[in-house]
Amino acid sequence: MKKRLVLLTPGPTPVPPEALELMSQPIFHHRTPQYQAIFGRVSQELKKIFVTKNNVYTLTSSGTGAMEASVVNFLSPGDKVIVAHAGKFGERWVQLAKQYGMTVLEIKAEYGRAVAAETIAETLKKNHDIKAVYTTLCETSTGVCYDIQLIAQATASSDAILIVDAISGLGADRMPQDEWGVDVVVSGSQKALMLPPGLAFLSVSDKAKKKMAEAKCPRYYYDLRLYEKALTSSDTPFTPALTLVLALEATLKILLTNGLEAHLNDTAQLAEATRAGVKALGLSFFAKERPSNGLTSIEVPAGVDGSKLVKIMRDEKGVTMAGGQGSMKGQIFRMAHMGFIGQEDLRIGFSVLTETLNALGYRCDAQKVLDAFNDVAGSKKVKQ
Amino acid sequence: MKKRLVLLTPGPTPVPPEALELMSQPIFHHRTPQYQAIFGRVSQELKKIFVTKNNVYTLTSSGTGAMEASVVNFLSPGDKVIVAHAGKFGERWVQLAKQYGMTVLEIKAEYGRAVAAETIAETLKKNHDIKAVYTTLCETSTGVCYDIQLIAQATASSDAILIVDAISGLGADRMPQDEWGVDVVVSGSQKALMLPPGLAFLSVSDKAKKKMAEAKCPRYYYDLRLYEKALTSSDTPFTPALTLVLALEATLKILLTNGLEAHLNDTAQLAEATRAGVKALGLSFFAKERPSNGLTSIEVPAGVDGSKLVKIMRDEKGVTMAGGQGSMKGQIFRMAHMGFIGQEDLRIGFSVLTETLNALGYRCDAQKVLDAFNDVAGSKKVKQ
Repeated sequence: MKKRLVLLTPGPTPVPPEALELMSQPIFHHRTPQYQAIFGRVSQELKKIFVTKNNVYTLTSSGTGAMEASVVNFLSPGDKVIVAHAGKFGERWVQLAKQYGMTVLEIKAEYGRAVAAETIAETLKKNHDIKAVYTTLCETSTGVCYDIQLIAQATASSDAILIVDAISGLGADRMPQDEWGVDVVVSGSQKALMLPPGLAFLSVSDKAKKKMAEAKCPRYYYDLRLYEKALTSSDTPFTPALTLVLALEATLKILLTNGLEAHLNDTAQLAEATRAGVKALGLSFFAKERPSNGLTSIEVPAGVDGSKLVKIMRDEKGVTMAGGQGSMKGQIFRMAHMGFIGQEDLRIGFSVLTETLNALGYRCDAQKVLDAFNDVAGSKKVKQ
Repeated sequence: MKKRLVLLTPGPTPVPPEALELMSQPIFHHRTPQYQAIFGRVSQELKKIFVTKNNVYTLTSSGTGAMEASVVNFLSPGDKVIVAHAGKFGERWVQLAKQYGMTVLEIKAEYGRAVAAETIAETLKKNHDIKAVYTTLCETSTGVCYDIQLIAQATASSDAILIVDAISGLGADRMPQDEWGVDVVVSGSQKALMLPPGLAFLSVSDKAKKKMAEAKCPRYYYDLRLYEKALTSSDTPFTPALTLVLALEATLKILLTNGLEAHLNDTAQLAEATRAGVKALGLSFFAKERPSNGLTSIEVPAGVDGSKLVKIMRDEKGVTMAGGQGSMKGQIFRMAHMGFIGQEDLRIGFSVLTETLNALGYRCDAQKVLDAFNDVAGSKKVKQ
């Protein structure tokens, strides 16, 4: 019998059958009215996910490419920027900004904590020459969600633009771009958008577009002015990963079935149910504040080998969770509950997790854990 | 009845059923031994297509992203380079090099002609400060194949490295990288490699690696040093478009069934058969010298509307060929015969082409055309 495989990693996440089916259809050409009609619809629907009136650009790239686009399109070498970070992906903003010659003011918090919006506001008040603030919605490496609304209030009253890595956050943690005043939102296909990796997305406010016109960093493949221009005829400047775009139409339909808010609420409930399960396990959360609704980061209990835990679940029991990255390696593991991940996936996840923890010497009661999960998840029939 | 769709464009090209099937399987995580085993094998097999002992880097990007990588990884702003071009894609090298602040010596030929290797050699002799020569194997916009072997002889005896856009040429037009001494070869997934767009490939010689260590252009997502390092553990620095990598293993197997030479010979024979069909149609080739084996570019006969010709074939008869780009729009059309495109696809293509040309007032005999095609193609059972 073929082993059931359950994917609970915070990207890639499971891809719905409708999307897989579309990717297995014979390919056709992208410079055709047929493709442009689809891409035009997809580009409109994406605005509902970003909650914006801005155009959303679709890049054929990993999310990191779109992060790079968010540096080179808005800055000139030597510009002063704030990077507010507390995790591996926030650190990537620092590397990128330095690589392109920026002066970087780092506002750090410990792994497991959120960055302090107040410190960002104070720093902006003291430094009138800051061009941009780079931060993260959901820091995937720690499972912490930052207070983007508060940070956006600080940037709104300054000349700086706010650029948010929402690669794993978009469609899982609430962040209405226009309402909150976020200038640039970056996302990727393989998280809450339920697709394989290969596409990245960017939405740019009018305030940021002005910076785009002045920016002197060299750019070509990621020159967003080319994407803006191409979008007027539902096109991209370079050959798109078109099979992923076709599949995106299907996943957006699923995600928006009852509107974005309903999907975010479902995801939030699944996150709460997961946290209830983790508590019943007697384990500690790695996120000390504002846990993301996209994933839960959990401390490996004392005496258990964290790398072994993840490996046994994946290789022997068919359940893939993510381990820790960098200095968190072996110390934490992460369960995702975003996108197409449903209750049943998480029940199997918890069942395999308790089984494996017991085998590794940490005593826990599978039924108690599932009951705790079901108590929260079962109160409403979400994402079955 | 569902209309049979025939794709004869020079990218994307048809994707084999085995590859489509793999892309419709449930997704799994890429930081796993399972994926790394596959990516390790694929990275080895790719060397057989490039005919090199160098590592081949796999980028999640369109081909243009890999072209950008070929500028930023080997040069510093202000460097002097030659760009030898005679078509839309060669012009992209000029735009890229200028965008990154290079001094560009352009060696041009007319559209439909090949660039002159002799002129490149002379220019290198007169300018000892040239860092790199950028050119194209198969110029997709004109269907001309350049004499890379002769150009490589010129760069080999100079300090300059030779960087070749083989996005549509690799696996269709013969270019053994190491034997000829080509330093950097760029390719993409959606041409002779039989995949959807979304992956790009780069292979770098030792001579070019030395330049890589000295290059001062800023780079991050396309920093090939990161790809080199990651490859030592069969990994990529950023999340890969993994479903395309899985499918690539299947298409490489097809392509290499009887070895690369056999596949190139089959493609060459199909190209010759196509050219015989075009001659029997009484049409003129747009390529005035060295036609590529990947595609044939054909002049639209006087009195026929070229855009209409392509549109009717595609929208009414299910056969997609490519029109002309830029100033060639409406003047030419292009039939591809690379990758997974087989005899039967081309027979349907010629049948629909003669039918449509007759409808548009150009008299031609379908049977005569098919006979001419079959005379060449049928002499050996290639790519049925």
